[in-house]
Amino acid sequence: MGRWEPNAQGRLEKAALELFSEHGYEQTTVAEIAERAGLTERTFFRHYADKREVLFAGTPHFRENFVGTVVSAPELLTPLQVVRAAAEAAGAALEEFRGRDFARARQRIIVANPELRERELIKLADIAMGMADALRARGVDDPDATMAAELGMAAFRVAFERWLTDAAERTLSELIEEALASVSAVLG
Amino acid sequence: MGRWEPNAQGRLEKAALELFSEHGYEQTTVAEIAERAGLTERTFFRHYADKREVLFAGTPHFRENFVGTVVSAPELLTPLQVVRAAAEAAGAALEEFRGRDFARARQRIIVANPELRERELIKLADIAMGMADALRARGVDDPDATMAAELGMAAFRVAFERWLTDAAERTLSELIEEALASVSAVLG
Repeated sequence: MGRWEPNAQGRLEKAALELFSEHGYEQTTVAEIAERAGLTERTFFRHYADKREVLFAGTPHFRENFVGTVVSAPELLTPLQVVRAAAEAAGAALEEFRGRDFARARQRIIVANPELRERELIKLADIAMGMADALRARGVDDPDATMAAELGMAAFRVAFERWLTDAAERTLSELIEEALASVSAVLG
Repeated sequence: MGRWEPNAQGRLEKAALELFSEHGYEQTTVAEIAERAGLTERTFFRHYADKREVLFAGTPHFRENFVGTVVSAPELLTPLQVVRAAAEAAGAALEEFRGRDFARARQRIIVANPELRERELIKLADIAMGMADALRARGVDDPDATMAAELGMAAFRVAFERWLTDAAERTLSELIEEALASVSAVLG
C-alpha cells in the first residue's frame, strides 16, 4: 500500500536533522518532519517507529562495521589489531557515507538531550559487548577479549569527538591511531 | 513527622533485595517491600523515590570512591596509576561495606532487567567521565585523560564480573590488577 516515494528515508532523515537543529529535538513533531520532507506521516511511520529512530537508523550498519570486522579479521592479527581494524572500518564508513557535517549536526542534537545521550551510550556499549563476544569466538579469553573491545570502543569515541572539532582535519583513522597510541603512553 | 525507625534504609534495602530475588523486580511492589521490612510505605518514600532507587542508593558513595580518589591522588602518580587506585578504592569499599553476596544478588537483579541494565551502564559511564574530568583538572590532556579513565572503568567492570563468579576467591584489587595487566598483553 502507499505509493513508492523515491529515497523517502534519506529525505526524512535530512528533514529531521534540519528541524531538530533549528527548533530542538523535543519541539519537533513527526508531522513537521514529514511535511518538510514533502511526505505523509504515514510514510514516516513506514520507515521509523518514532522521531528518535531517525537518529539511530544507521545503527545496524554501524554495528556491523565493528562486529563484522572482528568476526572476519585475519586470524594472525592480535586482539588489539582486530579492534583497531574494527574501529577504523566503522570510522571509514562514517566518513564516506555520512561525512563530518552530518555527524556534527547529529552529535549536537544527541548531546543536548539526556534521553538521546543515554540511547547513544547504550548503542556504543552494546557494540563493545558484541566485539568482545566476537573476540571470544575467535579464541581470545577474558579479560583480554573484554579489555581489547573496550579499548577499541574508547579509542573510537575519543577519536570521533576530536574528529568533529579538529581544525587540522585529520581522518578518523589517524585519530583512532593517536588514541590507541596514548594507551601505551598512559601505561608507560 | 513519622517516628524514627532504626536503620530503616538498611531494612528496606535488605527487604527489597530479597523480594526482587524471590519474585522478580517487576513483580515486587513498594507496599510489599515496606511490609517485609516492617515499615510503612510512607517511610519507604521518605528514603527512596521509587523501588528502582533502592538498587542505586549506593551510587553517590561509589562514584565518590572513584572520582574522589582521582582528585586527591598524589601528584607524582601516572594517569594509569591514578585510575587504578580509583578502581581499587571503589572495589575495596564494595568488598568491605557490601560484600560479595550482596553484590551478587544485586547484579542478578540488574542483568535480568533491561531498564536496570541501562541505568547501571549509564552510572558507570558517568563515573568514567567524572574520572576523565578529574584527570584533566590534574593537567592530563586528552586523549590520555579519557583513555586512562575508560581503561580504569573497563578494568573495574571486568574484575567485578570475575569477582562475582571467581571460585579462587581473589580480591577485587587482584582482579583489577589482572585486567590492567591484560591491556599490556593486548597491546604487546
